[in-house]
Amino acid sequence: MPESVVLPRGFRAAGHACGIKQGAGALDLALFVADRPATAAGVFTQNRVVGAPVKVSRSRVPRATARAVVINSGNANACTGEQGLEDARWMTASIARELGCGEDDVLVCSTGVIGRFLPRDKLQAGLPAVCGLLGEQPTDFESAARGMMTTDTVPKLAMRRREIGDQPITVSGAAKGAAMIGPNMATMLAVVMTDAALSPEAADRLLRRAVDRSFNCISVEGHTSTSDSVILLASGAADSSSPANGGHGGAADEEGPIADLLTELCVELAQKIVRDAEGAAHFVTIDVRGLRTDDEARRIAKAIADGPLVKTAIAGNDPNWGRIISAAGYAGVDLREEDMTLRLNGILLYESGSPVAHDAAAVSKAMSSGQVHIELELPLGEAQIRFWTSDLTTQYVRLNADYTT
Amino acid sequence: MPESVVLPRGFRAAGHACGIKQGAGALDLALFVADRPATAAGVFTQNRVVGAPVKVSRSRVPRATARAVVINSGNANACTGEQGLEDARWMTASIARELGCGEDDVLVCSTGVIGRFLPRDKLQAGLPAVCGLLGEQPTDFESAARGMMTTDTVPKLAMRRREIGDQPITVSGAAKGAAMIGPNMATMLAVVMTDAALSPEAADRLLRRAVDRSFNCISVEGHTSTSDSVILLASGAADSSSPANGGHGGAADEEGPIADLLTELCVELAQKIVRDAEGAAHFVTIDVRGLRTDDEARRIAKAIADGPLVKTAIAGNDPNWGRIISAAGYAGVDLREEDMTLRLNGILLYESGSPVAHDAAAVSKAMSSGQVHIELELPLGEAQIRFWTSDLTTQYVRLNADYTT
Repeated sequence: MPESVVLPRGFRAAGHACGIKQGAGALDLALFVADRPATAAGVFTQNRVVGAPVKVSRSRVPRATARAVVINSGNANACTGEQGLEDARWMTASIARELGCGEDDVLVCSTGVIGRFLPRDKLQAGLPAVCGLLGEQPTDFESAARGMMTTDTVPKLAMRRREIGDQPITVSGAAKGAAMIGPNMATMLAVVMTDAALSPEAADRLLRRAVDRSFNCISVEGHTSTSDSVILLASGAADSSSPANGGHGGAADEEGPIADLLTELCVELAQKIVRDAEGAAHFVTIDVRGLRTDDEARRIAKAIADGPLVKTAIAGNDPNWGRIISAAGYAGVDLREEDMTLRLNGILLYESGSPVAHDAAAVSKAMSSGQVHIELELPLGEAQIRFWTSDLTTQYVRLNADYTT
Repeated sequence: MPESVVLPRGFRAAGHACGIKQGAGALDLALFVADRPATAAGVFTQNRVVGAPVKVSRSRVPRATARAVVINSGNANACTGEQGLEDARWMTASIARELGCGEDDVLVCSTGVIGRFLPRDKLQAGLPAVCGLLGEQPTDFESAARGMMTTDTVPKLAMRRREIGDQPITVSGAAKGAAMIGPNMATMLAVVMTDAALSPEAADRLLRRAVDRSFNCISVEGHTSTSDSVILLASGAADSSSPANGGHGGAADEEGPIADLLTELCVELAQKIVRDAEGAAHFVTIDVRGLRTDDEARRIAKAIADGPLVKTAIAGNDPNWGRIISAAGYAGVDLREEDMTLRLNGILLYESGSPVAHDAAAVSKAMSSGQVHIELELPLGEAQIRFWTSDLTTQYVRLNADYTT
């Protein structure tokens, strides 16, 4: 991190190793705490099968404020039935006891293997311990980010700061995710905090908008997980007019700039997830332009991003562009091949349905930089989208072939 | 092949090496010919981007009879614009000239790399040559099957014979496909021939039914190709009452047994495609039972079959069953995890939403046989489906990372 990533005012964080993960000292607990009740919003997985923590957190977010988010890695507490629900609630109650707040003020996330019960014995000691480690330093923030990691190779943090309406506003976030990353948020977790003052309605709206343009625009293998959660906490500590600071709450006028700040932050975290994708050797940006609706553009971008044949070709620096056109063709969008024009790293390969003579070796060489830019243009409308994905390598298969055994 | 696979009466076949594929003697042309006009039906890819041969053949099938199917491998003639259409029509005209039939009586398929023009110089000599090689022997049939192959490691042929209404009926077929196999027929080609007499309507209905239960129930990577085609030719040579043999055509009463024969044959060919999937080390059968509709069962089976995380776990003999439940959860079907009960190779792992204690090492050992059976039961209805797929191995990625370069 070139710049030190700090927590916004009004927040503390900590990470701890309680022994859920194998390996001495591997951090597997993360805690983010707001000093006072913060406006809370959450966006959760669209999988029909959701982990117990998602059920618990999802039911609490409409209360509109929260004090803390507790996260464990190494075990997703998903597909664990009634016992799993009890375990998730017990985790929040344990944190609430330490912080002196209500159980409902604590949100919870878990990530890791599906279908195993949480080890309560390890958490029993670990949950009070992580509360004792809370601090406001960048190192505390980074420890929390490490406590969320599963197969991630680096902690993922980001920060944005801007003067908005005479107030210096900070938005900071931590994310995890390296596998099962599909659009609509497959196993990724993110906690985003800001010292801006936001109403519950604005927090919800702004978070959904930001997620839609960031975490929902990345795909590693199209597997929507049981546990994905993005949680936003807004402390209002930056805003002297905030009700929390005795004011009347005047920040609503500044929603636009805060929305941009939040989206930028989420895009940076989402890109960090793609760059750390398991076994990935290429970072791929996909621009799809000229569709009738955003949904059409998104479907095409997702079909390209999820296509194993596209991803393996990129792994081999193989400009096998027919696989990209073919993937667009099965995206379920009404289009003709004559509508499509394709560029790979700026080189025109296919124009209005016909192949264009090009130097395949030059395209392959451009791809070998590790940065691949796919641009697909259609003449059907004005809608466009930008997606990010990774390639599919032998290393990915190796990492995923023996995750539990 | 334990039993010799023969052509039905009234058909001849040939394979030839005309030089489209690199490597001396690699067969890249296949020809199937009916001695007289045969009832024809076809089912084609659902990709919006279709190869020129699909456009040509699809436009000709409603004529209801055909004399021949010509196939080249090594080049898909897809994404090739107007020139590609002219090339496909020229191929059929060249064969028609040799056989002395109308151009419209010849159907055409191409498979291989997308986005390159067909090498007319090589085909100019090759098309008459393959016509000169036509024969009715099993070796001729096998040569034709080899002429369709791309990355297939073995030719795929199958035959079924049964007495139906006092007539011995034969159904024989050849298929190719080893990559880009998704449900709804991603790059696979099959030519199925029978000496039964079928009306054009019955041929179309029976072929669609058979494809729906065979080629549309296999998935290697979910990539629907530009070129998939299954073509049925029915000569009527077995049926003394057939109009082709001077009779009045009485076979309509026997549609049920012929439908079964055709479906069995297509299932055998589809399974051969999955068994030969690129780099595959496991053959996976997926049974999904107890849904409200066939479509629901199919969506769930497809989500499991296409899930890279499911497929990599199987490659590693890793009984990471949470990935299967999670894939079912994102299939877009209205269900709860409490509805699901899962068995892997007969061993109960998950029952009505709760994990069941089991010996993971024993499950892993059972998987290492190379045969994996996933059984997912729900209590929502009577609909069920059987799907077949392969695992996802490092070898698959290697094969697909440098296909064109």
